[in-house]
Amino acid sequence: MRLSQFHLHTSKETPAEAEIVSHKLMLKAGMMRKLAAGLYTWSPLGLRVLRKVENAVREEMNAAGALELLMPTIQPKELWEETGRWQKFGGQLLKIKDRKEAEYCYGPTAEEVITDFARNELSSYKQLPVNFYNIQWKFRDEIRPRFGAMRAREFLMKDAYSFHVDDESLAAEYQNMYDTYGRVFTRLGLKFRAVAADTGAIGGSASHEFQVLADSGEDAIFFSTGSDYAANVELAEAVAPGPRAAAGEAMRKVDTPTQKTCEDVAALMGIPLQRTVKSVALMGVDGDGAPQFVLALVRGDHAVNEVKLAKLAGLADYRMASEGEIDTHLGSEPGFLGPVLVGGAKSTAGSPKQAIRIIADRSVAAMADFVVGANEKGFHLAGVNWGRDLPEPDLVADIRNVVEGDPSPDGQGTLAIARGVEVGHVFALGRKYSEAMQCTVLDANGKAVHPAMGCYGIGVSRIVAAAIEQNHDDNGIIWPDAMAPWQVAVCMINPKNDAGVTAAAEALYRELNAAGIDAVLDDRGLRPGAMFADIELIGIPHRVVVSERGLAAGSFEYRHRRASEAENLDRAALLARLGAA
Amino acid sequence: MRLSQFHLHTSKETPAEAEIVSHKLMLKAGMMRKLAAGLYTWSPLGLRVLRKVENAVREEMNAAGALELLMPTIQPKELWEETGRWQKFGGQLLKIKDRKEAEYCYGPTAEEVITDFARNELSSYKQLPVNFYNIQWKFRDEIRPRFGAMRAREFLMKDAYSFHVDDESLAAEYQNMYDTYGRVFTRLGLKFRAVAADTGAIGGSASHEFQVLADSGEDAIFFSTGSDYAANVELAEAVAPGPRAAAGEAMRKVDTPTQKTCEDVAALMGIPLQRTVKSVALMGVDGDGAPQFVLALVRGDHAVNEVKLAKLAGLADYRMASEGEIDTHLGSEPGFLGPVLVGGAKSTAGSPKQAIRIIADRSVAAMADFVVGANEKGFHLAGVNWGRDLPEPDLVADIRNVVEGDPSPDGQGTLAIARGVEVGHVFALGRKYSEAMQCTVLDANGKAVHPAMGCYGIGVSRIVAAAIEQNHDDNGIIWPDAMAPWQVAVCMINPKNDAGVTAAAEALYRELNAAGIDAVLDDRGLRPGAMFADIELIGIPHRVVVSERGLAAGSFEYRHRRASEAENLDRAALLARLGAA
Repeated sequence: MRLSQFHLHTSKETPAEAEIVSHKLMLKAGMMRKLAAGLYTWSPLGLRVLRKVENAVREEMNAAGALELLMPTIQPKELWEETGRWQKFGGQLLKIKDRKEAEYCYGPTAEEVITDFARNELSSYKQLPVNFYNIQWKFRDEIRPRFGAMRAREFLMKDAYSFHVDDESLAAEYQNMYDTYGRVFTRLGLKFRAVAADTGAIGGSASHEFQVLADSGEDAIFFSTGSDYAANVELAEAVAPGPRAAAGEAMRKVDTPTQKTCEDVAALMGIPLQRTVKSVALMGVDGDGAPQFVLALVRGDHAVNEVKLAKLAGLADYRMASEGEIDTHLGSEPGFLGPVLVGGAKSTAGSPKQAIRIIADRSVAAMADFVVGANEKGFHLAGVNWGRDLPEPDLVADIRNVVEGDPSPDGQGTLAIARGVEVGHVFALGRKYSEAMQCTVLDANGKAVHPAMGCYGIGVSRIVAAAIEQNHDDNGIIWPDAMAPWQVAVCMINPKNDAGVTAAAEALYRELNAAGIDAVLDDRGLRPGAMFADIELIGIPHRVVVSERGLAAGSFEYRHRRASEAENLDRAALLARLGAA
Repeated sequence: MRLSQFHLHTSKETPAEAEIVSHKLMLKAGMMRKLAAGLYTWSPLGLRVLRKVENAVREEMNAAGALELLMPTIQPKELWEETGRWQKFGGQLLKIKDRKEAEYCYGPTAEEVITDFARNELSSYKQLPVNFYNIQWKFRDEIRPRFGAMRAREFLMKDAYSFHVDDESLAAEYQNMYDTYGRVFTRLGLKFRAVAADTGAIGGSASHEFQVLADSGEDAIFFSTGSDYAANVELAEAVAPGPRAAAGEAMRKVDTPTQKTCEDVAALMGIPLQRTVKSVALMGVDGDGAPQFVLALVRGDHAVNEVKLAKLAGLADYRMASEGEIDTHLGSEPGFLGPVLVGGAKSTAGSPKQAIRIIADRSVAAMADFVVGANEKGFHLAGVNWGRDLPEPDLVADIRNVVEGDPSPDGQGTLAIARGVEVGHVFALGRKYSEAMQCTVLDANGKAVHPAMGCYGIGVSRIVAAAIEQNHDDNGIIWPDAMAPWQVAVCMINPKNDAGVTAAAEALYRELNAAGIDAVLDDRGLRPGAMFADIELIGIPHRVVVSERGLAAGSFEYRHRRASEAENLDRAALLARLGAA
């Protein structure tokens, strides 16, 4: 491509609407233009990058044996009602009525459509396993679309769905996709981590997120300093601490007139935050399904993990307790709550159904001489000890977020934090969809069985933004070679004032492309400063400058986008450097 | 690809829902599956074909210098209001509200979006001419979606839009796209015609439809037997006939008690239909914009052309007259109307504004001794002659559809009819959108001008169906090589009962693919009859059978999909035949 025949439209101004660096740089580089909230037109420049990502994903999926098909963007309501997701999916589902008032949605994902396809197309175990994928536009009606391609409403996604006669086959394909995703992101030249993730409400058997590492990433990833363990904060296990120390203090009431947080109480008392316990009041259900008031306890310096909590018996649909419920059960107001149920605590006198359930995080269960709210406004209790001042907890469990420095759950090293952008997700779904939608195949014994399913997503357009978050500097984007709109820019200095520059640059440009290197010729006739600024902003990884002076010396000026200095190379050395010789 | 690792799902049954052959065969071959009315999932087989078409279109567009970008499928209402099309586009526009009640549509075309892009991205004539295209899913909410991929609601379209500082540049790009479209359809191996088309209400300066010829096509194309003239029925000109003959009969009243059509009157009178004249009552406006009653006259064997009528002064927004209006102006009821305004015709006595306007088709103006309605129930007039029995027409114009056998408007040969499926359209739009949306660029003199625009569409998914309409037989589809899911099928006979068949077939399969020929290996182990039926149904153009007997004789059985007989070829001859040697 010759830039004189391309549409390049860079901007020096930083767009005010953009909050994150990838959004800013994609707008400045002219890769995309906003059409409406969360909707972007990909310019010729941006589309070149998007297509390179798309093709890398497609080639790796094909090599892994997956079969590409294509589902419509518009999906009928009826299928979503079969799985109950028409209601459950929430406000992100863009619902549409056609001229006959029939209802549809713009697909945010395609489990229903592919399961409908499968129940019509698949009848025998002989057709399994099979993995269907498509690369298609999706829509999620974000409440506050922002961050450009990172969280656009209309986005390009590769979604794959596999079908299996048994769990072993699913596990094998899950591993195949896990490995394939690793190949995709490696090939794209991105630093990434596969992170164990929670299987959540869907309840599948395994799940990993693929995170492109970037300081600006919105997801926290905990990884071990001593192994390849990595998990997101929802899943990462906080291991049990050592045994509980013996009680050393007597329980005493402490005057804390305005101190409602552990931080404030610790400061007032002059003790470490780690000595305090936070009591979080929840409403769950007991074994009979009746409402049950729950106090969840975590150390003052820890945070409750909602995903872990929701996995506990009786807490699948928990909610925070209201102030009225707190008063009813503890006789106190928030800020002074605690598990020592004497005095102000009313509920122990109630019916057995009304008993308060105490759930202690593993760290809290191991504490001695700790500080909790007194269930009385203006007071806390210090020197509290399990078994002496209050009964042992009803349940000890891992209910907190891990923090940096925690031991790694695999026993090797400690946990450190990285930040990442989720660009892929593999998920062993199990039979949720095949059962809900009556999708069956005959197994080898002629018996109808619901196939086990896996689903595997890659955010194709999101990868573009994630790559920029990871790879940029003050001058602009720095593309990995595999994603660059062009790998090499051949820049002509003073082409009009010709002294062989045009001919030499054209020849080099043609030679590179003939060698399979995607090169662009900057023949726009700009001054060097403006030309170089553009080429750096749009992130071309390799720049070659052809000038009269260089030609006289028999050399080309070569500079990698990350290099601080340019080098003068003769033709053979240049071609070798660019992999064209 | 090995078919054992593919998902092929053919059916022997002809689906009841399908009315046209391409729809039937795409379902039988398992190329697609219906998801909902007008929505189809493209199976792995169907997608292979769709992608081949898409890539051919892309490569030719790129070679023509057009720049690919990508616009979202969802478009904001505000842009459509700028051009007035939010109301005017009609029921095919799928309107959508998001969670914030903001309004959007699923783009059926993208003039508004690209003009918005252009007014932001283009500022100088130096950036012109430029031709932006995208290959993106579109949606038209058809009242009665049917015919499968031929008229799906969600369909894949290549739409291109060019911008020019002057009309000459637009004309040059129009020609460039016209030529490019010819290359696309030639490359795809389709028989097609470029057909001059009406520019319609948009009022551009030129328009051609590209029609894939097929007996089942819904569009009639008139082409010259003596030149390359071709036009659709809306546009094809009916040339003026020879001079009017002299009157030979006296005007007389004929008793036609129940004969309300020209056919019935001609039959009753025993005269050729060509001697009768049909009077069509319309309401238009006069030169002052006041309502005007119009009689449009065409020969009894001709049909009025509504597009041609609407181009005449006063008829841009014409409508059919009501029975009340007909009675008011002619004092008659439909079935007996005519242009001889005596007796029952009231209107000549009215105000000048109420004068009836008589518009005669060129053929009618040249008639003598013709038959018309008498404006009296149960009667017609015969032996009617212009100038003697009624004044000369107010206007003589071409207002009829051409018919087979008419002289070609270019004076060479006569017109014949072909039927076609419209798969492409090039259109010189002019400044309609750039003016409506205030898109301007500075010209060489520094003056802001509205760029002239062209738009150029290709129905990518429709081409798949059109190709089948043109290329099929009782056994299934017959793909042109360039569109086939695979060009060659290598079929193994009794691969399990192996006598070198598997090895020979695998070697051939690999050799063909290495030579750049897209070959598939049918290693499913089916019996020959079932295997061949599948391969014929899905339309693979070249079939090679590898059998124990053939190998013993040193030959492969080769058959082209259109050939009546197979041939036995040795390896070298086979490779030469397939273009792999």
